[in-house]
Amino acid sequence: MKCSIILFDGFELLDACGPAEVLAGLGEEYELGYHSSTGGVAHSSQKASFATDPFSAIEDGGIVIIPGGRGTRKLASEAEYIAELRGLCERAEFVLAVCTGSALLARTGLLNGRKATSNKKAMKWVQANGTEVDWQQQARWVVDGKYYTSSGISAGLDMSLGFIADRHGERVAKKIAENMEYIWNSDKDADPFAL
Amino acid sequence: MKCSIILFDGFELLDACGPAEVLAGLGEEYELGYHSSTGGVAHSSQKASFATDPFSAIEDGGIVIIPGGRGTRKLASEAEYIAELRGLCERAEFVLAVCTGSALLARTGLLNGRKATSNKKAMKWVQANGTEVDWQQQARWVVDGKYYTSSGISAGLDMSLGFIADRHGERVAKKIAENMEYIWNSDKDADPFAL
Repeated sequence: MKCSIILFDGFELLDACGPAEVLAGLGEEYELGYHSSTGGVAHSSQKASFATDPFSAIEDGGIVIIPGGRGTRKLASEAEYIAELRGLCERAEFVLAVCTGSALLARTGLLNGRKATSNKKAMKWVQANGTEVDWQQQARWVVDGKYYTSSGISAGLDMSLGFIADRHGERVAKKIAENMEYIWNSDKDADPFAL
Repeated sequence: MKCSIILFDGFELLDACGPAEVLAGLGEEYELGYHSSTGGVAHSSQKASFATDPFSAIEDGGIVIIPGGRGTRKLASEAEYIAELRGLCERAEFVLAVCTGSALLARTGLLNGRKATSNKKAMKWVQANGTEVDWQQQARWVVDGKYYTSSGISAGLDMSLGFIADRHGERVAKKIAENMEYIWNSDKDADPFAL
């Protein structure tokens, strides 16, 4: 299954790399790719520059991962970008948004009437991007249909392991966490950062 | 302070990005850069391709971060690479090695007579790269002088927060962890993955 990580200038490094690390832990099962709207280099807020392929290279029926970060503030109001992202998410089998990545996903309208969460300190701004979303103020991550949304930055690691557990069983998720020597916060409702 | 992250083909994505995310959390305090021996693109095992500057662009007196990953197996026996790395580490104020990155650091000889740790499942191979190192079989991370070494992959997050705590105080480290919504495993001696 193809797993496409959406990058843009000002993405948050761990938002993107946490899920990538976890999903790659399944070996050949998921084929990872890094994409931006037009391709080329995407710069994270942590100064890392990633080579990306364009959105047009993303195949239907895969997993789309949307990180957050400062760059979401600008993109949230770019109608053409949001329309492209909506198309990708509609055609994906699963969509995982980390941190303020959920603001971009909310902008597509695809979360309307659905439960979702985001970075707790950015929640007010995120909510303004999707007034018809049933935002959860307390959740490490939320699953609603094919849409997974997580709390801030590091919560993407926990959500991705939760996604693996849902699809492949908890034993597989625990094995991946163990290989990463990661202490998985496996309860999606336990949120020590809720305000 | 300059913070130089050492990349190479087959580096482990989270080994590099965990510390980068944490150190960038201090804002302008640390200036992050991504480097490989000759510069150009470095490919992680998780298919991410990073732009890098050459080792020659690394200034003395900064922080050097060495991730692990499959690529360390080949590099550990490349004498010229290890000599270059030794020079960088000698001239750095601090060196942080994550996971099997400690095998590369051990190969330089700079850990001889010092305490260090690494990925627990790779420990036998790592030990063979530094028979005069006082390897710790049970530790989330180890500090010996200017050298920090951590357990596998995700332990780099905890060690980097520990490094911040040592330099800037625990309050600052906790604030960064909170901003990342990260549940910091702050006890460097608590190692649930020890064999």
